[in-house]
Amino acid sequence: MAHALRLAECGLYTTQPNPRVGCVIAHGERVVGTGYHARAGEPHAEVFALREAGAAAGGATAYVTLEPCAHFGRTPPCADALVAAGVARVVIAAEDPFPQVAGQGIARLRAAGIAVETGLLREAARELNIGFFSRIERGRPWVRVKLAMSLDGRTALANGESKWISGEAARADVQRWRARSSAILTGSGTVLADDPRLTVRPPDGRENPAAAGPRPLRVILDRRLRTPAGSRVLDADAPTLLMHAAEAAIPAHLLAVERVALPVAGGHLDLDAALAELARRQVSELHVEAGPTLCGALFAQGLADELLLYVAPVLLGDAARPLLHLPTLTDMAQRWRLNPVEQRAVGSDWRLRLRPSR
Amino acid sequence: MAHALRLAECGLYTTQPNPRVGCVIAHGERVVGTGYHARAGEPHAEVFALREAGAAAGGATAYVTLEPCAHFGRTPPCADALVAAGVARVVIAAEDPFPQVAGQGIARLRAAGIAVETGLLREAARELNIGFFSRIERGRPWVRVKLAMSLDGRTALANGESKWISGEAARADVQRWRARSSAILTGSGTVLADDPRLTVRPPDGRENPAAAGPRPLRVILDRRLRTPAGSRVLDADAPTLLMHAAEAAIPAHLLAVERVALPVAGGHLDLDAALAELARRQVSELHVEAGPTLCGALFAQGLADELLLYVAPVLLGDAARPLLHLPTLTDMAQRWRLNPVEQRAVGSDWRLRLRPSR
Repeated sequence: MAHALRLAECGLYTTQPNPRVGCVIAHGERVVGTGYHARAGEPHAEVFALREAGAAAGGATAYVTLEPCAHFGRTPPCADALVAAGVARVVIAAEDPFPQVAGQGIARLRAAGIAVETGLLREAARELNIGFFSRIERGRPWVRVKLAMSLDGRTALANGESKWISGEAARADVQRWRARSSAILTGSGTVLADDPRLTVRPPDGRENPAAAGPRPLRVILDRRLRTPAGSRVLDADAPTLLMHAAEAAIPAHLLAVERVALPVAGGHLDLDAALAELARRQVSELHVEAGPTLCGALFAQGLADELLLYVAPVLLGDAARPLLHLPTLTDMAQRWRLNPVEQRAVGSDWRLRLRPSR
Repeated sequence: MAHALRLAECGLYTTQPNPRVGCVIAHGERVVGTGYHARAGEPHAEVFALREAGAAAGGATAYVTLEPCAHFGRTPPCADALVAAGVARVVIAAEDPFPQVAGQGIARLRAAGIAVETGLLREAARELNIGFFSRIERGRPWVRVKLAMSLDGRTALANGESKWISGEAARADVQRWRARSSAILTGSGTVLADDPRLTVRPPDGRENPAAAGPRPLRVILDRRLRTPAGSRVLDADAPTLLMHAAEAAIPAHLLAVERVALPVAGGHLDLDAALAELARRQVSELHVEAGPTLCGALFAQGLADELLLYVAPVLLGDAARPLLHLPTLTDMAQRWRLNPVEQRAVGSDWRLRLRPSR
């Protein structure tokens, strides 16, 4: 199953909106077929593995990281293919939460007399498709907030200068996190201040395998539709979606840009509604690169699922800009607690990943 | 020599004001004597090792982490003892910078026909006595600034509450850093706000080997002598030194407390003068636990040698108090760059050690 998970990871940047899935077919220790899902519309992991195994699939065990599908989508059901190939046993890491599958794949296999086991390395399998599970099970994307700061928690100088707090390696690393995401979210304030591209770029001209997948949707929370003509987020390098208040007047230069009106709550676009809308549009992992107000609101409202934090070993001082605008605390017991998921060095910076304690 | 360095570390908390020194006497791979300096006034590392070796010291190699002394202090010169024992070869990690030694130990050994080599693991040996070398070579202590902050760089809530940002393991770890220091520095603002003890305490009642050494001097930068009667820093648990401006009136409750007047520069006590005074008082490692103003001034003036930073995985928000008051930057090129020395987990917190890039 560990092998199947590594195969599934080959689709990290390319399967959107589908989950990443890997499959290994084996007789005991002897592997006879391997496969992974590479791209929506192309065959699933099981099909590639069965093709490779050929007649050797008969009586074999298939290890699949996600429950095989039982419905006709763009490809025929994988459960049927496993039955037809005469597989004796199927080991599944994680059950598919998708309503059209949800146990039906397992049921179909068992009905055909195949032994089915589930749960082997389930957590790792769910982690690999954390956005997919979030979207199907919670109706909202997995929200990963990327921030880069100095050691003293500052993201920019008082005058707004923020290039470059992080080093080159950290900036290249960010491109990979963008690439695995379905969409990249920012606010109109960041568009106005920094005019970011929000595309996946090979860093400094080098080839980047992460740039091979579908281009993540650029999503701008722009209540009053202030995104200026000529903004880089409006270029043709990736699709863009503007989320705005229903009453916002639509400037001529935004008429051709995809837009969706959202309810307004407390003077801001309703973030729950924004995330629900993005899930409806098959956004699984949502990568957020925004200012302290939007990022702070996501944390304060419990909508940030993960903090991807780059820390540079520099000091900027207390006049510099803060990491997150959060409501003022009056008691230490109110502090937002996070659980560290991972910490590592990236060039001269540290990369921390943390998730709020629920 | 690595063995000798580990022996030297046994004196980490106890040799003040002397350096930590270890010695191994060996014939090839066979160790015949080991020793370390434990406490000022007691014999040096070489003496313990020679005693253990006895007649086996004849023709042996002595590995010493610091150049053997050549002068009569509280104990007779170790160089003479090595000569008398008939040692054939002495390998020294670091030369002693102390004016009364400075090469004379080596000279005396060589004059007696002993082969002397220097520099083996020199950097590690200097690191172990970084405060001693700083005091002798630079005329000021090694200044280690301890700070504890949230992930977003905040040390306390807006209302001043700061207990407990760090977890228990981090607080226990701080006690060890205090214990290895000659003195603990704070400002009168911290005394007034937090009434700290600034002593070395066994955390939560457990035995702490770090509490066995001499009690670090408590040093209060208190220009106007505002330290209130009954402050914990004035108790009998450790010696205390108040540094103040010459014109400050001395309140009755501070008459019996050791004091020294310092020049004032720009409305603040002159920090260079404070450090020179502490070096004169044989302070090698100076542990700083103070507020953002004093800590920031040490960094801004290039007097902070090391940042000992505990980071708790919590968010406090931008209304909370900043890590360091530093002059406002107008250009990212002005940022204070630090070199990471070490990073590790301490309980649920991270401990980072960094040193300013010179």
